[in-house]
Amino acid sequence: MWIQKELSLKPRSRGFHLITDEIERGLPEMQDVVTGLLHVFILHTSASLTVNENADASVRGDFERFFNRAVPENEPYYQHRDEGPDDMPAHLKSSLLGSSVLLPVSDGQLRLGTWQGVYLCEHRDHGSSRRLVLTLNGNEAL
Amino acid sequence: MWIQKELSLKPRSRGFHLITDEIERGLPEMQDVVTGLLHVFILHTSASLTVNENADASVRGDFERFFNRAVPENEPYYQHRDEGPDDMPAHLKSSLLGSSVLLPVSDGQLRLGTWQGVYLCEHRDHGSSRRLVLTLNGNEAL
Amino acid sequence: MWIQKELSLKPRSRGFHLITDEIERGLPEMQDVVTGLLHVFILHTSASLTVNENADASVRGDFERFFNRAVPENEPYYQHRDEGPDDMPAHLKSSLLGSSVLLPVSDGQLRLGTWQGVYLCEHRDHGSSRRLVLTLNGNEAL
Repeated sequence: MWIQKELSLKPRSRGFHLITDEIERGLPEMQDVVTGLLHVFILHTSASLTVNENADASVRGDFERFFNRAVPENEPYYQHRDEGPDDMPAHLKSSLLGSSVLLPVSDGQLRLGTWQGVYLCEHRDHGSSRRLVLTLNGNEAL
Repeated sequence: MWIQKELSLKPRSRGFHLITDEIERGLPEMQDVVTGLLHVFILHTSASLTVNENADASVRGDFERFFNRAVPENEPYYQHRDEGPDDMPAHLKSSLLGSSVLLPVSDGQLRLGTWQGVYLCEHRDHGSSRRLVLTLNGNEAL
Repeated sequence: MWIQKELSLKPRSRGFHLITDEIERGLPEMQDVVTGLLHVFILHTSASLTVNENADASVRGDFERFFNRAVPENEPYYQHRDEGPDDMPAHLKSSLLGSSVLLPVSDGQLRLGTWQGVYLCEHRDHGSSRRLVLTLNGNEAL
């Protein structure tokens, strides 16, 4: 069983945002999968996806503060500057965090740890709607 | 062919640990797969998985020393502090390294480079047993 | 449908290189896949793979300059030094960026965003030919 569909997320502010629920709601077909994998891929190079803590919003704030220090704006050696000071750092953060997550599916549900969720990492000051490609592959119940 | 199972690793000290053998021993079903992929997913947000050098233990020591400098404890801007100084850095390291690895399988075995192995990256001072979800998908021999 | 093959890339200079076309040319079987996933895995621990901007070469130059600062050579605490000053940083960069990318396939083609491409990240001064394992899984057209 293969299902593939695109999911458009509403524009988010710069920072880290939990999107586990949106992914699950966008893919009701998952309930028929006994064992499988869900691939979530973002079609952009200035936003990214990762799995991390799903409970305390201060973790997501600390992510934003950490990555802004680890990948500063306006480094004198940046040559790609035409799209604003947040653009080149956005590309770098995107590759540090990654363009996709791959998640186990069991008995119709994402099989995540109790404290795990999927983050949309918006690295631009004014990111637009972000498009994801969801690809689900697995065994169906008979 | 789909196989999915959970593997519990014994508690490890903070640092980077080779676990390729444990994964292989935990999944004898792999010997029946001609061509496939093995997904290894960690059900935690303060430990992670990566692929790197499998021979010289000093590489793994240098990983621990590097990541401790790249993601320091006790940064004044951290707001998520309740679980101790090693906790927020553990979440950040987890997303820098990743929650899963996806590995090719050929003729019943992991198809890794000569010098590649899978690392469990334990980012907490006193991490407990870590649980992995192994998902194997592939073609069986006739 | 499962296809798995090895692809050898010619040696590249240290830095970040677009290889999307080489991957596509190396896998003509992809044209028969309606819905699927392509896994690209590098069999080395001193080079890596990532998805990022495919148009402006200065982005790739900025990647090289950023990662050289984020992961410096000759850190006094490195103990793994036998293979030269570029070796330990290469291992670290490899895990920061990752050993593999997983890409959606739709209607016979990679389904990437307009500005996305696959980078080979060569972290050694004198890297040799790099070997990739391509694993394609998907639904065939009837």
